[in-house]
Amino acid sequence: MKTPIVSVLGALLLSAAPMLPATGLAVAAPAATTRSPDAIAADLAAKALASDLPMQIVTDLTTEIGPRLAGTEAEKRAADWAVARLKALGFDSVRQESFTITGWLRGEEKAEITGPAPQPLVVTALGTSVATPPEGIEAEVVVFKRYADLLAAPEGSLEGKIALVTEKTVRAQDGSGYGAAGLIRRAGASEAAKRGAVAYLLRSLGTHDHRFPHTGSQVYAEGAPKIPAAAISPPDAEQIERLVARGHTVKVKLKLTPSHPGTVTSQNIIAEVKGREKPDEIILIGAHLDSWDQGTGAIDDGAGVAVVTTAAKLIRDLPQRPKRTIRVVLFGAEEYGLLGAKAYAEAHKAEMGKHILATEADFGQGPVYAFNTRVADPKHPSIVRIQNALTPLGIYRGDNAAHGGPDIGPMMQHGVPVVNLALEGSDYFDTHHTPDDTIDRIERKRLNQTAAAYTVFAYLAAELDGDYRQARVADAPNTASGN
Amino acid sequence: MKTPIVSVLGALLLSAAPMLPATGLAVAAPAATTRSPDAIAADLAAKALASDLPMQIVTDLTTEIGPRLAGTEAEKRAADWAVARLKALGFDSVRQESFTITGWLRGEEKAEITGPAPQPLVVTALGTSVATPPEGIEAEVVVFKRYADLLAAPEGSLEGKIALVTEKTVRAQDGSGYGAAGLIRRAGASEAAKRGAVAYLLRSLGTHDHRFPHTGSQVYAEGAPKIPAAAISPPDAEQIERLVARGHTVKVKLKLTPSHPGTVTSQNIIAEVKGREKPDEIILIGAHLDSWDQGTGAIDDGAGVAVVTTAAKLIRDLPQRPKRTIRVVLFGAEEYGLLGAKAYAEAHKAEMGKHILATEADFGQGPVYAFNTRVADPKHPSIVRIQNALTPLGIYRGDNAAHGGPDIGPMMQHGVPVVNLALEGSDYFDTHHTPDDTIDRIERKRLNQTAAAYTVFAYLAAELDGDYRQARVADAPNTASGN
Repeated sequence: MKTPIVSVLGALLLSAAPMLPATGLAVAAPAATTRSPDAIAADLAAKALASDLPMQIVTDLTTEIGPRLAGTEAEKRAADWAVARLKALGFDSVRQESFTITGWLRGEEKAEITGPAPQPLVVTALGTSVATPPEGIEAEVVVFKRYADLLAAPEGSLEGKIALVTEKTVRAQDGSGYGAAGLIRRAGASEAAKRGAVAYLLRSLGTHDHRFPHTGSQVYAEGAPKIPAAAISPPDAEQIERLVARGHTVKVKLKLTPSHPGTVTSQNIIAEVKGREKPDEIILIGAHLDSWDQGTGAIDDGAGVAVVTTAAKLIRDLPQRPKRTIRVVLFGAEEYGLLGAKAYAEAHKAEMGKHILATEADFGQGPVYAFNTRVADPKHPSIVRIQNALTPLGIYRGDNAAHGGPDIGPMMQHGVPVVNLALEGSDYFDTHHTPDDTIDRIERKRLNQTAAAYTVFAYLAAELDGDYRQARVADAPNTASGN
Repeated sequence: MKTPIVSVLGALLLSAAPMLPATGLAVAAPAATTRSPDAIAADLAAKALASDLPMQIVTDLTTEIGPRLAGTEAEKRAADWAVARLKALGFDSVRQESFTITGWLRGEEKAEITGPAPQPLVVTALGTSVATPPEGIEAEVVVFKRYADLLAAPEGSLEGKIALVTEKTVRAQDGSGYGAAGLIRRAGASEAAKRGAVAYLLRSLGTHDHRFPHTGSQVYAEGAPKIPAAAISPPDAEQIERLVARGHTVKVKLKLTPSHPGTVTSQNIIAEVKGREKPDEIILIGAHLDSWDQGTGAIDDGAGVAVVTTAAKLIRDLPQRPKRTIRVVLFGAEEYGLLGAKAYAEAHKAEMGKHILATEADFGQGPVYAFNTRVADPKHPSIVRIQNALTPLGIYRGDNAAHGGPDIGPMMQHGVPVVNLALEGSDYFDTHHTPDDTIDRIERKRLNQTAAAYTVFAYLAAELDGDYRQARVADAPNTASGN
């Protein structure tokens, strides 16, 4: 670890310090200020709000790389891009940590109503879905307007049929509507298969009303036959509902040709701003680098990559680094079941106790509207100071039942205390996991407020003293946690 | 033709007349009223605004038939559906008039950036496009931000390249932005081919910003090589623009496999409300029954079919029919170049002089905001009375440069006077010719106002006296026209 003085000089030399044109020498570094952490946090917020960096990063990632499906060459290109970018930004200890996953690649995907009113459907395979036979599967559709109705259907009742669940995903600021609907996608295929279905369809999880399907992963249950699983767009689901409501027997033909390349490699990317006093203590801010393959992963999760990178970069460029280390983790293979997060928690098991606070940005572009924690003492003075610094950004104090973010889950199980900068998600599922997840969806003003919030949080969490320890849900302190 | 008395009774028996439960007999028909045409028009408007029929028709057509590409079995199913429906509604002389067209069927369509940032593009072939070789065409893309720039490119300058025009379609209430951009789609492929291009792409004509391409027809120019032609979605066009602006050489691979089934049959559907005094004089209200194949043709032109059918039905159900005949024409093969309209004008050449006024509903769901004419005397007392009847619906008096609607063009060339009930089109090109053109886009209130406007117009045009004769553009009376 460098001494603080060297660190400060290094930061200045690497940052955009004004040069004296006549000599080419950097101007003298200002002495470390005696400004309070709170004042520095306010400066950082102002810088983040005005920064071009968040839009640059998400634009570059989605343009130069595009979609980045886990375990593919595209994800690897994104990882190499990220390493180069993080090094160019001057971070410490930039590295890739590889792990293996079971790959899956989308193939052809086609569905059509073959009777009574022949017409194509807009469909997409769910991640991990098996293929149909090459000629497809043609069968009568049984519609369930509630997932509960599928679960209530007796064994054998779907013999030879295609099950279609048309339950709607409810729009909610915190994404809880998607949470409530999640099992329809993740578990529905096996539930249908147990009852005899030959294929499984669902109305896309998502709140938009466009002719896009919404992909995402699903998991086959042990012991159930593996049947092809796919999502159709909301208007297509409603078309079938209407035909069935009119008394028609609706037949659908489904053709999916995904492939399973076996064991492939993914990777997490790590970059740090080493702390000046307690470099082994870690404030972790994460996002995930992989994306689904239909859009370019701007909202999910290019925005998060941009936000946490910007936060760390602005802190890195301070005249004096904070006491603790800020670690940026760009997780791989999030979309396939938090595989990068699990690999990270496993690889870093020994230092879990040194993770002072962890959070992720993986819910779109924001803005951040609430600050939630899961710590033993949610009124800890440092937590109060962080909240006070966030308030001017339009962020209120939320609850103490934070989850940290998808990729933080495995760490949380190791007792790491977590926070959430709760992101405005009312429109997140209009775009998430659809072809519409592209850079033009990102609004600079929203993204920059989010970057400001993460910057303020990361800086103060790294600068202020405090050993937070994790709290159980409902604010019960978890004395066994922390390491 | 039936006598008026029989007609009125027939109308009552076929309409939803209240039945006396005890006897099963219809209640006595009320005597023909002595109310003024203006008062009857106001009654009709109120009925149209409250009617379930417009939503029923557009829902039924898009659900029971779905997409109806010209010359296909689906268009024929739609035609048979329409005949049955129009007969059930009690119209006179319901019939199909067949004609032949050159068929075209969409095949597989795929495009991807192969370098420098490999990623799929959302693409759709333009109608009449030739296929690529089975393995596709891979070439460098040359971007033209203005169509004028392509036209200014010298011969041979696109040798071996794919031309991409990314000019934007401007949002405009009257659709003039689409009009201004039309040649980019219709003529661009041949212009590119003349300069050596091996394929032609354009940014979708359309005002939406979603990941949909916008299809539509194009025409190969005589003498130019026929090259594949397709549209990519707006975000995809911007992605390529960004990569090129960054100095990259962008390569795209395009694969299209449309087929050309040769001569196929399409048909116009005709239904009438025979006039009580001048049954050979025709007020023509049209719409088109065919649609593009990606959506279900709700906006284009299920809405128009619903509106003109409702208008004629409400007039048909009056105690006394108007003096002139109202003819509903549901044109076939509009999307392939007004082929049904041309067939109609040819087949009915002899009675063109008996077409007193003609208009079409082919610009979405409305509402109608202006009443435009193209008649010799735009201040004709009957025109003024029609306008007065439309004003309460929120419709102002427009200009005297109406075009009648796409399918009215061929008639207009025969001198038929035309009007336009100008439809609100600000959002029309958000949906038009995309997969998003589905029934959920239709708002009942907008559709019903449109139906009310067409009902009022058709009724008064058929009831009031007036020989309008066509005016040339800019209000110059065209004394040679009229038949």
